[in-house]
Amino acid sequence: MKSKILVNFCPTGMIPQKSQTPFVPISPQEVIEQTHEAYEIGITIAHLHARNEDGVPTYKQSVYQQIFEGVRKYCPELIICGSTSGRNFPEFEKRSAVIELKPDMCSLTLSSLNFLRQASVNAPEMIISLAEKMKSYGVTPELEAFDLGMINYGNYLIKKKIIQGPVYWNLLFGNIAGYQASPSHIGQAIQEISKDNWITLAGLGEYQLPVNSIAISLGYGVRVGLEDNIYWDSKKTRLCSNIELVKRVHDLIEINGKEFLKPKEMGQMGFYNSSRITSKAEFFQSN
Amino acid sequence: MKSKILVNFCPTGMIPQKSQTPFVPISPQEVIEQTHEAYEIGITIAHLHARNEDGVPTYKQSVYQQIFEGVRKYCPELIICGSTSGRNFPEFEKRSAVIELKPDMCSLTLSSLNFLRQASVNAPEMIISLAEKMKSYGVTPELEAFDLGMINYGNYLIKKKIIQGPVYWNLLFGNIAGYQASPSHIGQAIQEISKDNWITLAGLGEYQLPVNSIAISLGYGVRVGLEDNIYWDSKKTRLCSNIELVKRVHDLIEINGKEFLKPKEMGQMGFYNSSRITSKAEFFQSN
Repeated sequence: MKSKILVNFCPTGMIPQKSQTPFVPISPQEVIEQTHEAYEIGITIAHLHARNEDGVPTYKQSVYQQIFEGVRKYCPELIICGSTSGRNFPEFEKRSAVIELKPDMCSLTLSSLNFLRQASVNAPEMIISLAEKMKSYGVTPELEAFDLGMINYGNYLIKKKIIQGPVYWNLLFGNIAGYQASPSHIGQAIQEISKDNWITLAGLGEYQLPVNSIAISLGYGVRVGLEDNIYWDSKKTRLCSNIELVKRVHDLIEINGKEFLKPKEMGQMGFYNSSRITSKAEFFQSN
Repeated sequence: MKSKILVNFCPTGMIPQKSQTPFVPISPQEVIEQTHEAYEIGITIAHLHARNEDGVPTYKQSVYQQIFEGVRKYCPELIICGSTSGRNFPEFEKRSAVIELKPDMCSLTLSSLNFLRQASVNAPEMIISLAEKMKSYGVTPELEAFDLGMINYGNYLIKKKIIQGPVYWNLLFGNIAGYQASPSHIGQAIQEISKDNWITLAGLGEYQLPVNSIAISLGYGVRVGLEDNIYWDSKKTRLCSNIELVKRVHDLIEINGKEFLKPKEMGQMGFYNSSRITSKAEFFQSN
């Protein structure tokens, strides 16, 4: 069991809008500020989505660039992860544009799947093309799995050496057409993954808190933020902020006698973009 | 544990061509003949796909009509199931055309998913529209699940009463982006399903035989045929016929001290198309 807890912060996502919760960060400035606050508490990765001014998700490099520059400025050691989601723009050129900005990681959803009201199409050719582009830009994939078969496909890509280097998985429980936030599904999912890979467990909606709690108690990482859940409580009586959610994870980590995995510790395992390391060799000396 | 084994015969599917195996039935005549042979051995359901003369899958009612009429003539009690697969023709009108012919059942794939080289897109709206059309034509859905989340979604449709009446699931193990043919995955899948539902277990490729064996030993149904596997042996040294595969299932059923669930027994549980029962009230008396 690991004593250091990897915390993946997901403040924005594709779905929440200001009309649903005033707390969701939309503008680059808001994303940067909230990520900075969370960084001060101790997160390891920030999983970031870009939005237009009207709140609609965008693939535009100019918006991602603004976000990444601000986050790098205020959170120099943080692992930065960009989204390649194809839910709103399916073309490879659009989905993969963020990779060219050379963040440390980019998300890689491992199959087509359904959400409650929408299909998310990620055909095998798309997945492989995204993985290969990431490799050529020094970007590590964030392997996203909503069900057992997606883990199986990720392991297949690793076996085929389409994915190489250090491996990180984000397992998301509680989607209507995915595995559920039950001990048996979580247990089954975890045991499919090699012991030397890093894992965070995410719970959608009301399952965020129980899945975070289970993960921390077992020594696995967590994903936390308004992307997956906008309420403080399971009865949905109160909207909450990203920082409240991260503070609660902080408290759970403390109570369980564990500590945050520091971004730099993760970076030194090979998760920093290789260009960051090459161009800033002094980074590791000076920090 | 059930002593009667439901056998779902899948002779053709979307993929196998004569160039891969001479045994695959393509023309309506071939499908009818092989289904008749299998019926004589003891199958319960025939899961049928239509092909054009050149072997390409088709949604055309005229081809399905020919197949269904022939099968009804030679196998009057057999449960007939038509495919609504959208892999080659995604439009609702095309996918759902077969439902209007009022077979007893039609397939209903419960999410979008990936196969090794292709996405199969079944958005929530499509699934619900197909289920509703089936209901209005007296057709029972054959619930097809390749992973845990697809079972969860099927249970959700049952809870929402979008699916009503007797419930039958076909669980397919061994797709690259689905659950695998392992005891733990099979066990996990089965325990998600209500005890009063009917289940067959299918294994893709070399997993057909072990999954068939496991299913029969546990008292679950099996799906068997060239749609899922064209080889006799796991080393793929010999192509085989549909009838050879069905005979092997017959032998496994006998060795395990069980018997085939008869089509009429399944029909009497409510799986016959309601129009068949209404228009042929004498059917149950005379048979």
